[in-house]
Amino acid sequence: MRKKADKTRARIMRTAGKLFAKYGFKGVTVRQLAAKARVNQAAINYYFRDKYGLYCEVVKELVRSFETQPAQYWEERLQAATSFADLEVLLGEYVDAKLASHLQILKTEERWRQELMMRLMMEQDELLRSIPQWLEREMRIAPELFRRLSPEKDELVYRLADIHLMGQIFFYSAAEGAVRSFLNYTGNWDDLLPRIRELVLKSVYAYLELQWQGRN
Amino acid sequence: MRKKADKTRARIMRTAGKLFAKYGFKGVTVRQLAAKARVNQAAINYYFRDKYGLYCEVVKELVRSFETQPAQYWEERLQAATSFADLEVLLGEYVDAKLASHLQILKTEERWRQELMMRLMMEQDELLRSIPQWLEREMRIAPELFRRLSPEKDELVYRLADIHLMGQIFFYSAAEGAVRSFLNYTGNWDDLLPRIRELVLKSVYAYLELQWQGRN
Repeated sequence: MRKKADKTRARIMRTAGKLFAKYGFKGVTVRQLAAKARVNQAAINYYFRDKYGLYCEVVKELVRSFETQPAQYWEERLQAATSFADLEVLLGEYVDAKLASHLQILKTEERWRQELMMRLMMEQDELLRSIPQWLEREMRIAPELFRRLSPEKDELVYRLADIHLMGQIFFYSAAEGAVRSFLNYTGNWDDLLPRIRELVLKSVYAYLELQWQGRN
Repeated sequence: MRKKADKTRARIMRTAGKLFAKYGFKGVTVRQLAAKARVNQAAINYYFRDKYGLYCEVVKELVRSFETQPAQYWEERLQAATSFADLEVLLGEYVDAKLASHLQILKTEERWRQELMMRLMMEQDELLRSIPQWLEREMRIAPELFRRLSPEKDELVYRLADIHLMGQIFFYSAAEGAVRSFLNYTGNWDDLLPRIRELVLKSVYAYLELQWQGRN
């Protein structure tokens, strides 16, 4: 029975993710959700309390799906990094992990994830306006890395650099088609990745007023 | 009569813009377009030939609405710029113009413009896959500016720097709400603009492997 319940819950979330991506939180009714997920409305209330509860779970799972490593992994790596060189290597690894997870999602049938993420950002979403606790921990990693790489800046710079980093990675992965045609690029997308990676790193260094030496 | 026809045409385009932004090209039927714009389907065919013709006109007007100056203005400024300092000033002005037009749109009731632009990029749009001629002229400006600022790079770098520039400006303007909450920033958005402007410029310089000296 437990297994069946898990399956139902997962099916509701998956269906909801696709619908929220396409029509937004307000554009989807519980009735539509139930019909598409082949459950009755009571099931949605049972598993998620209400539409908002379901939405929060979908967003949580969405953000997790873009993580290759849990926050704890990066926290431990940060603690272990003692030199500037360690921190640079760590930044390179962090960029690789983010790029890989975003591009991975594009290669699956999970394109709705990019769309829901975009919608979250575009719609000045209530959920994002007050950052939930579980997301805050994740959001401290990159600023802490930047702070240690370039300690003299003010807090706003570290947060802007983080947004800049994520925005770029998101843009390159979500808008692959547009980027391709703007670049007039017909080659293999994977061949372009080292270039994009380098440019992402260079521009983060520029934000932090450091000179990128290609050590990561 | 001419005036009435212009008004009808404009109303169809405006209605279509909002619908395409919300549901995408495939998600809207001619019947829905006609009903929402309060015209009959024949009127749409009369003014735009078909749904695709209407779509192309909407996108063309959309891109134009993000331009503060026509391509010719920038071409003339590029020709008039003879020194590196001239080019730096011109780049600053270009970034200002793009930032201003994107933010202007957010302050009006024209939010659908940001959404349609985002959709164009996300959906790997057919129209964007083969860049129309009128857009190509516009798209040559920034790469030419970058080429003259840093002549030794290869073409891909100039195009990537252009995408990077536009991506950043688009991201900061479209995702103001998300940026605010990520930054934990409650102040006046306009006060943040000089910081964003500086960071955009710094990162473009990093792409071009030039040192930003704050001369623009």
